[in-house]
Amino acid sequence: MPIVQFAPFASLVQPSLWHKLTELKIDVLKLSDAAVPITGSYSIGGVLKTERRDKRSRCLATSPSVQSLLRRPRSASNDSLFLRDWSRYPPRPPHGSVFAVGTLKNYNTIEDFKAADKTALFNHEAELIWGHILKTRDTAQLNRFLLITFADLKKYKYYYWFAFPAFVSKPAWEIGDEGWAIATSGFDPEKLSSIHGQLQAQPTHLPYFLVKKEASGNVTIAPVEDYEKFYASVPPEAQTIAFVDPSADPSNPGWPLRNLLAYLRALYPATTSTVRILRWRDSELPSPNATWKSQIGTLSVAAAASSSSERPSAVGWEKNPQGKLGPRLADLAPMMDPTSLAAQAVDLNLKLMKWRILPSLDLEKISTTKCLLLGAGTLGCYVARALMGWGVRTITFVDSAKVSFSNPVRQPLFEFVDCLEGGKPKAECAAASLKKIFPGIVSLHSILIDKHQLTPAKNATGHSLSIPMPGHPIPSNPASLAQAKADVARLEKLIDEHDAVFLLMDSRESRWLPTVIAAAKGKIVLNAALGFDTFLVMRHGARVSSLSTGPDGKPHQKLGCYYCNDIVAPADSLTDRTLDQMCTVTRPGLAPIAAATAVELLSSLLQHPERLFAPAPPPATSSASASNPEEDGTSSVLGLVPHQAARLPRPIPDDAAGRGCGFEMLVKAFNDAKFLETLTGLDKLFDEGEAALESVEWEEEGEDDF
Amino acid sequence: MPIVQFAPFASLVQPSLWHKLTELKIDVLKLSDAAVPITGSYSIGGVLKTERRDKRSRCLATSPSVQSLLRRPRSASNDSLFLRDWSRYPPRPPHGSVFAVGTLKNYNTIEDFKAADKTALFNHEAELIWGHILKTRDTAQLNRFLLITFADLKKYKYYYWFAFPAFVSKPAWEIGDEGWAIATSGFDPEKLSSIHGQLQAQPTHLPYFLVKKEASGNVTIAPVEDYEKFYASVPPEAQTIAFVDPSADPSNPGWPLRNLLAYLRALYPATTSTVRILRWRDSELPSPNATWKSQIGTLSVAAAASSSSERPSAVGWEKNPQGKLGPRLADLAPMMDPTSLAAQAVDLNLKLMKWRILPSLDLEKISTTKCLLLGAGTLGCYVARALMGWGVRTITFVDSAKVSFSNPVRQPLFEFVDCLEGGKPKAECAAASLKKIFPGIVSLHSILIDKHQLTPAKNATGHSLSIPMPGHPIPSNPASLAQAKADVARLEKLIDEHDAVFLLMDSRESRWLPTVIAAAKGKIVLNAALGFDTFLVMRHGARVSSLSTGPDGKPHQKLGCYYCNDIVAPADSLTDRTLDQMCTVTRPGLAPIAAATAVELLSSLLQHPERLFAPAPPPATSSASASNPEEDGTSSVLGLVPHQAARLPRPIPDDAAGRGCGFEMLVKAFNDAKFLETLTGLDKLFDEGEAALESVEWEEEGEDDF
Repeated sequence: MPIVQFAPFASLVQPSLWHKLTELKIDVLKLSDAAVPITGSYSIGGVLKTERRDKRSRCLATSPSVQSLLRRPRSASNDSLFLRDWSRYPPRPPHGSVFAVGTLKNYNTIEDFKAADKTALFNHEAELIWGHILKTRDTAQLNRFLLITFADLKKYKYYYWFAFPAFVSKPAWEIGDEGWAIATSGFDPEKLSSIHGQLQAQPTHLPYFLVKKEASGNVTIAPVEDYEKFYASVPPEAQTIAFVDPSADPSNPGWPLRNLLAYLRALYPATTSTVRILRWRDSELPSPNATWKSQIGTLSVAAAASSSSERPSAVGWEKNPQGKLGPRLADLAPMMDPTSLAAQAVDLNLKLMKWRILPSLDLEKISTTKCLLLGAGTLGCYVARALMGWGVRTITFVDSAKVSFSNPVRQPLFEFVDCLEGGKPKAECAAASLKKIFPGIVSLHSILIDKHQLTPAKNATGHSLSIPMPGHPIPSNPASLAQAKADVARLEKLIDEHDAVFLLMDSRESRWLPTVIAAAKGKIVLNAALGFDTFLVMRHGARVSSLSTGPDGKPHQKLGCYYCNDIVAPADSLTDRTLDQMCTVTRPGLAPIAAATAVELLSSLLQHPERLFAPAPPPATSSASASNPEEDGTSSVLGLVPHQAARLPRPIPDDAAGRGCGFEMLVKAFNDAKFLETLTGLDKLFDEGEAALESVEWEEEGEDDF
Repeated sequence: MPIVQFAPFASLVQPSLWHKLTELKIDVLKLSDAAVPITGSYSIGGVLKTERRDKRSRCLATSPSVQSLLRRPRSASNDSLFLRDWSRYPPRPPHGSVFAVGTLKNYNTIEDFKAADKTALFNHEAELIWGHILKTRDTAQLNRFLLITFADLKKYKYYYWFAFPAFVSKPAWEIGDEGWAIATSGFDPEKLSSIHGQLQAQPTHLPYFLVKKEASGNVTIAPVEDYEKFYASVPPEAQTIAFVDPSADPSNPGWPLRNLLAYLRALYPATTSTVRILRWRDSELPSPNATWKSQIGTLSVAAAASSSSERPSAVGWEKNPQGKLGPRLADLAPMMDPTSLAAQAVDLNLKLMKWRILPSLDLEKISTTKCLLLGAGTLGCYVARALMGWGVRTITFVDSAKVSFSNPVRQPLFEFVDCLEGGKPKAECAAASLKKIFPGIVSLHSILIDKHQLTPAKNATGHSLSIPMPGHPIPSNPASLAQAKADVARLEKLIDEHDAVFLLMDSRESRWLPTVIAAAKGKIVLNAALGFDTFLVMRHGARVSSLSTGPDGKPHQKLGCYYCNDIVAPADSLTDRTLDQMCTVTRPGLAPIAAATAVELLSSLLQHPERLFAPAPPPATSSASASNPEEDGTSSVLGLVPHQAARLPRPIPDDAAGRGCGFEMLVKAFNDAKFLETLTGLDKLFDEGEAALESVEWEEEGEDDF
């Protein structure tokens, strides 16, 4: 009699699996190469389809409870436990398909992937199947499979290799001389239709099932697990054992039959040396004139030499398209949308920080922060670039100037072509440039009307806004006052719409109004200013009342703003300046350093549990002297959150920034150069001795806006 | 008798004047608004043409002796003296023209320009003329003029206002009833031709001259300065006083006549109440049938009420094209070539540093430094940008990678579009990007063949180069050895062609060969490497012998290289790394800080008189503690020149970097991972105790090349 030949499984991987694997690797597995469960499916007469279970994966991304699990310290057992949890809730299989479960093992490096002990992995999976046969008798485990992968996430190339362990019967099974016959030779069509109906009525499609011809002539089906009970006192000729056959080859039954036969021989050796097998290959009832595709055949095997409880050897590594035993390669890069490729690549780059160095880093707190950049010059451009590096997705520029010929070599969002024909408006050009760098960004702009500009910007779109400044008087006619009021309101709205405000202008006084408004609204304010070889970067303090306390019950620390630390109130510094005073004369390398420092300060602040209220480390704290800064609450996972960089804080004279934000007070400030000094008591401080000025080493220069 | 009306001078400014003024302002005057001499010319029957004297200006830019003058401490008197020096050597005037000298006063701000005390300036110039009349009697000074300017160098707008002071005669001069008659009515054509010939024979064209009819009937001419001698015992009817007349108006003689008349009345009151005046208006002899353009007229004036030595009042501010007394505006921006506009703007921005803060800064030492950037990733892009900010004009990139989707948000020379279709080669793309930013740059590239890249770069142009690395064995076949030898030679050539080498790669071992070659060739090496929140920036020391001494006679300090300070020799760190190890996981703000720090270190080093041999400041030196670092030779005009930043130097174990550069030794290093450790004694150091490792806090990560 001819030996039975089996058609092996062929893997078919949906690209979505690789996306899910990418997510899993980046967000959950990180550096772990622990095995994780995976589910596939196969359908009648078809090929094996594999995909990560959508339901679970989707939950990974969105469920708050999962989020909290993810934040627990990473360990392989945790991840595995969690992943296994979900296997309790299998989703519905694709129509007409049955599930196969398996093990996915993803390696960290191509070298690890190549060097993996494939025999051990394979045998482990075979052991699992054998264990199920002997212990749980769960036929759903008979088609367990193994998938080993290496995901080159930089290039979207996925190396993978499937194994479908199937036990080898020694001696081999043989098929009767009639071979595989059409199923109607054993069951009349009415009975086959009845089997079809009964299968459909199952909660999930059974991969294997028993068929019994009742004495009444009816047929009934049952799971193979019920073998003993279902076939009790049923004559062998009324017994047919069926399996959902993925093989479309009429001569060779599909792979699932192999382990079914091993199962039967192991558990019921007395009654299964000859079995009638139904290859179930009709997912739909055949149309009236068509024939049934299912086949029937009688298989028999000689008595095994070894004990039936000893695990037979197994085979089943899949061959690659070249017909060799070796891995396959899925190159997804060509089929991916470039924009989403970019988004994923940037995301990956950031998430790598969580793999090893900072698992508790909350990147979303940073990326969702909406940033308003007042000034799109050297500092503004570099700040925007550093923010993009952190994944910040909303960046709005406000500026009044146009790109001039000296800008591009120092302002990294502009090119020569942007300077032609009078120059593009900087804010608009910078926003467009961010889009060119990363299409996923939301970058807006407002073009200021600069009172010092002789002609207003011609191409101005978006908001037109003039920031009223102390010492720059507003004409007292009603129209000018109304315009100033509208400008204040517009700036207020812009600040309202953002979470963090960067002060990156080229004058001191233009920083005053945004400072006051942002303080009143409790927004984060980062301030950066350049000297020739000095810079100041600081975060403005929050307004705190005596009742405002931190989580430890202590009152919030009162930190100052740009002006709190100065002994000269802001006034007109723009008029009557020489060229080198109008342009910030600064070492070219200073702006990127100051800008990046400001952004790193923001990133640390956002990681601090108290955010805006984060206390400043004591002045003496340095990385060397601070024994444990995390304990005194001045540190975030990203380290210390200083109040300012490159300039020591001085005591804060008064809560000047937050005092009295009424429009009338503002008008006084704009018109009277001395008003602010009087209001804040700076005039007295000043009168007390100009000697104090000698301690001001800081040369007041703002943003390079040459 | 009708009163004589004069045609005022009309100014005509060549655009070249504004370019010269721009140079003068940026390079010489800087913040000074001291008056400087200026020369103009006017020609017969035409308009006044003004230009800076080309000869002097050209010398300003190129003469070595002028260069050294420019480096002397800036002071107004120095500049003025220098500028006046040149007036001793007047160039030849334009053909048929005469010179006028004047005073240029350029203001620093538009406010200063507007607020200038114009009456005082004008009177000062008129005083000068009057003083010359009374003292030097130099008629070349009669047409002195004044030009006040404000140059808006950011926008290439030049505000200017001319004054041509002319004395007012009270009472006014009157002309005889015959008015201005053709010159042939007083001189027959033969005599006029004789005058023409005599004028041409003068070394410079006389602005004014005396004509005498000899008894013989001949005419002779003489400078007006010779009045007394020349006209001694000459009857009044034989005397004619002539001037080169810029006026083309037959009824109104030109402006120069006014001060001539004042001159005559002041010096020779007895003989000049009636004078015959020749308006000389024939630069060429008229063609045979044409008439002479020169005119003749007899002017007379009543006796003056005041003393002849008292300065008469003067008039002469030029009206603007609107017919009002007010400044004119020359807007050069539209007529300038954008590329040269950009070059000038960038130049200006840099030179502003010399105006007030650092007059002794030698920008050319920086801008002419040819920089080789090994690595065009995050560090490479930021380094290139900072170099451009300093005006560096030759930047060459070497890299093997292509732009990937995660790059643009962190690598500021790439855009999303550069990632498409597999990505552009980084080195080529970065070089092209620099050109887009500043067309004046010379940016080259070499594309490395990366041995770790499965497929070689398809679009590779320029050099293809693979940097052999220690621990990455070279196959021992002759072809591979020859290739490696060629690669070493090519890298050597690249290093030869540049002055400074930046090591900005993503692995430690790839820095080794360039370190060795650059040390052997005495090139400056700047090294930057990133950790997660740490970075190392250092300059490699020069090879020094015991005979090598600094200008103070002390032996040169021996500074180490990247490897001197490490206790692990470079070996293969690229194979078998997980994704987060292959990509530099780093705070996004770190790269711009490290890159800019490296460039600032280079800029300081280049300003140090000993350049590569500049000693490092002692470890304890900080800006606070160093009382006077310039005295101990460790500081440049740009401040301290540390050996490294962000990591304290350790003692240098051996001069390992420079030892034995033969190719055979190199091959050993590439092939044997342990060879370098043995060579340098690091293996022993290592064996002596792994405890030492605990002091190595530095996490080895190179360039982000994700």
